[in-house]
Amino acid sequence: MRYLLRLWFFIPCFVFTQVYATRYACTPCNYPCDTTTYEQPGVCKHCGMALVEKNRQASMDEKITVCFYLYDGVEILDFAGPMEVFSYAGFKVITVAKTKAPLISQGVLKIIPDYSIKDAPQTDIFAVFGGSDEVATNDPEVISWIKSRDSVTKNYFSVCTGAFILGKAGLLDQLTVTTFHKSITNLQKAVPKAKVLQNVRYVDNGRVITTAGISAGIDGALHLVSKLKGKEVAEAVAKQIEYDKYLPEQGIDLSSAP
Amino acid sequence: MRYLLRLWFFIPCFVFTQVYATRYACTPCNYPCDTTTYEQPGVCKHCGMALVEKNRQASMDEKITVCFYLYDGVEILDFAGPMEVFSYAGFKVITVAKTKAPLISQGVLKIIPDYSIKDAPQTDIFAVFGGSDEVATNDPEVISWIKSRDSVTKNYFSVCTGAFILGKAGLLDQLTVTTFHKSITNLQKAVPKAKVLQNVRYVDNGRVITTAGISAGIDGALHLVSKLKGKEVAEAVAKQIEYDKYLPEQGIDLSSAP
Repeated sequence: MRYLLRLWFFIPCFVFTQVYATRYACTPCNYPCDTTTYEQPGVCKHCGMALVEKNRQASMDEKITVCFYLYDGVEILDFAGPMEVFSYAGFKVITVAKTKAPLISQGVLKIIPDYSIKDAPQTDIFAVFGGSDEVATNDPEVISWIKSRDSVTKNYFSVCTGAFILGKAGLLDQLTVTTFHKSITNLQKAVPKAKVLQNVRYVDNGRVITTAGISAGIDGALHLVSKLKGKEVAEAVAKQIEYDKYLPEQGIDLSSAP
Repeated sequence: MRYLLRLWFFIPCFVFTQVYATRYACTPCNYPCDTTTYEQPGVCKHCGMALVEKNRQASMDEKITVCFYLYDGVEILDFAGPMEVFSYAGFKVITVAKTKAPLISQGVLKIIPDYSIKDAPQTDIFAVFGGSDEVATNDPEVISWIKSRDSVTKNYFSVCTGAFILGKAGLLDQLTVTTFHKSITNLQKAVPKAKVLQNVRYVDNGRVITTAGISAGIDGALHLVSKLKGKEVAEAVAKQIEYDKYLPEQGIDLSSAP
């Protein structure tokens, strides 16, 4: 009888501690481990992210959204580097093109965009990339659509000659920016009200981040992750994608400049 | 009359020198500048590649072909880095999947493959990538198809956990290889006859090159370009894509080992 009484007491206690015990989970990374919980803090065995308390994960799970604007001739690594970084950082990534027709990146990769400019939802970040950027720059309908989203866009992000697209939309005036190393002079001519820097991986003006060419998009994306989710998350992503070569100081952060 | 005689002499000479003068062109890079010629040696104004004599370009124009084998869940930067590098080096890149149905890379990017395993042409290089590699590894039809191309494949190239696919096809036995940093132990178990190294960007066994995770594919691809087209071409591609961080010595080249 005494044994049964003990059980009657301990079982509810055990259940209570299991249900209400602090459990830990990785910060959202868009991988199946987003739903895995751990009893102890540390790092996620799958994605390598630092674990946070599960209830904190839930509040972080209101994902930051990013629109990747793509077009025929967009350079593949320009967008693929940041897409890898933002996905691992748990951002929700969507692809948008002028229409939903398949497009070809760099003459090689056939892509079906998720949305057209007619039905694309609003996103926190608007990202554009280089390559045949004149496809977008010379299209008044696209430029007008980009401008129409301005009031809800929290951050603009360009890689390589994607800066010409932001410039055409009037988004680089009075800012310090960068672009592909062979397009520095041309961007300065196209956007005379901006100050175009060379030999820098990225320039952060606060709302607008522009990066140098092609692979520099990875550094710029890691910087944006660091800014929005913390340095430890950016470092965990860099480690995960084995981009050991990430050196934050290769960029210029003017976001807190007067 | 003497004036006319001079013209009669000089015009054919001028035409002759223009037609037969040595002209220069960039090494094939899959960009419009492939058809641009220059009067003097140097570098191409568009792509930055070293110029070669035009008739030498023609002989180099028998393009090296690469099959990018893709599947649902393939990691985007795993394949996009090498795709950027090989495209810029002038290789002809094709995408192949089990079927021609659209697939989704990393849960984000919708891709239409060029070919299925039923109609894919033979290529010089066969390349596989990580992510949900079990989609390919656990598919006997895919593994059998990879094996069936062995006699015509000159080089195998894997990024990240793409090594598990090559391993399943029996292509890593007796070799020194590498993979994603968190999969070193598992690959060693899966391919006990291989020697799996950690902390190296790529390992070149001659015919088979395996790379570490995700961004390391860029280094491995640059190494393969260097091997097949020369160090100066690899360095020009690295400069073009602003991958200033390329350090060839971060890989191990065992191709000339006894």
